[in-house]
Amino acid sequence: MTPALHPRGALRSSPIRSVTLTSGEVDAIAGLLTLRERQAFDLHAPEKILAVLAENPIFNVLDPEFVTRRRLDGGDSVSLSGGLQLSLFPVPGKVPLFLEDRAQALLAEDEVWGAEVTDGRARLLFIPACAMLTDALRAHITDADLLFFDGTLWEDDEMIKAGLGPKTGRRMGHMALQGAEGTLAAFSEVPVTRKVLIHINNSNPILDRSAPEHAAVRAAGWDVAFDGMEITL
Amino acid sequence: MTPALHPRGALRSSPIRSVTLTSGEVDAIAGLLTLRERQAFDLHAPEKILAVLAENPIFNVLDPEFVTRRRLDGGDSVSLSGGLQLSLFPVPGKVPLFLEDRAQALLAEDEVWGAEVTDGRARLLFIPACAMLTDALRAHITDADLLFFDGTLWEDDEMIKAGLGPKTGRRMGHMALQGAEGTLAAFSEVPVTRKVLIHINNSNPILDRSAPEHAAVRAAGWDVAFDGMEITL
Repeated sequence: MTPALHPRGALRSSPIRSVTLTSGEVDAIAGLLTLRERQAFDLHAPEKILAVLAENPIFNVLDPEFVTRRRLDGGDSVSLSGGLQLSLFPVPGKVPLFLEDRAQALLAEDEVWGAEVTDGRARLLFIPACAMLTDALRAHITDADLLFFDGTLWEDDEMIKAGLGPKTGRRMGHMALQGAEGTLAAFSEVPVTRKVLIHINNSNPILDRSAPEHAAVRAAGWDVAFDGMEITL
Repeated sequence: MTPALHPRGALRSSPIRSVTLTSGEVDAIAGLLTLRERQAFDLHAPEKILAVLAENPIFNVLDPEFVTRRRLDGGDSVSLSGGLQLSLFPVPGKVPLFLEDRAQALLAEDEVWGAEVTDGRARLLFIPACAMLTDALRAHITDADLLFFDGTLWEDDEMIKAGLGPKTGRRMGHMALQGAEGTLAAFSEVPVTRKVLIHINNSNPILDRSAPEHAAVRAAGWDVAFDGMEITL
């Protein structure tokens, strides 16, 4: 038999040794289903996100013999390979206008998180969803060496205008980029060495490198993430 | 605003109007999570597969306003667009050696299905998992114009030999291709116009077009499916 080799040389190898979840929403957790099948890794998440996994038996494909679910509370730190330390910090999530259904009820205030990774020298922050830049969050972000931040929408009502859905960005827990309360304005006075927009919706015009909105985020000191992007700190 | 256009011309359009599930296993249902977000389609499945979805609230991202779950029992037929008719028929599933856990308990005898699609002229069968070619199944397949069939493994103990897992193909509910009880032998006397192997595991040497096993399935009258394959009936 001559089995097909995985590109990394071993049969079904993966460089992933650890996964940390920053929310329990489908776009944050569904990817776990492609890591199944006897891939050993540690799965870190706060209590309520672990509860979302627990109430969906489909995640039992992550065989407990190989995947260990570990509770990681805000402020606690975990050691990763390569001398890195990871910790979670709370981020403003969805505005709790009303609890429209069960899925919504799962998104309480303490269920949206950012992740900080540091080697003791440089510090990177990963914040894929953020409803508002509070003073506490601004203080935490100040002087970061690298910030990955929620770039979902250009305008708060972008999805509605495009006929893609009835929800504003605010309603979905995402700051818009433009406007007086938007991300570009909010970060204008926050010192961060490098800022990269991630989690960009396909309605967002910054994805078009020839668009004025793309030029505007670049002028404000942000990069727009792309598949295969590599960053050296 | 100049939102990015979907390749098909409309914002977030999809040609998918209907989805039918032939099993409740993760590789059959996880793809639903990439069809979410206000894509209107009908979701057809037998009762027990619908129950698997129901006990995993993550599938509630398929908004009931857009996605209608419809029970489709074996033998019943549903009309699709283009004058097509679809029906399900039972296929031998996993050998119930023991009920090792809850996920396993969901895979009872009547939870693995094949799908038949016909325009009244030509008839195609889709059978991505099959533990055994029974007389009833052989009779149903006979004289099909196109058969997509379980090509998971070349040898029953292929996963074990390759160090990928402890289960035989038989244990996973898949006939192997080679051997006296294998698929190539079992179909040697079954008249089918065109036969295509699908659901091929990455340990299966037939994926290597230069391998003798690939030549063997071709010599036995089978095609090996590939991404982007198009077939005209």
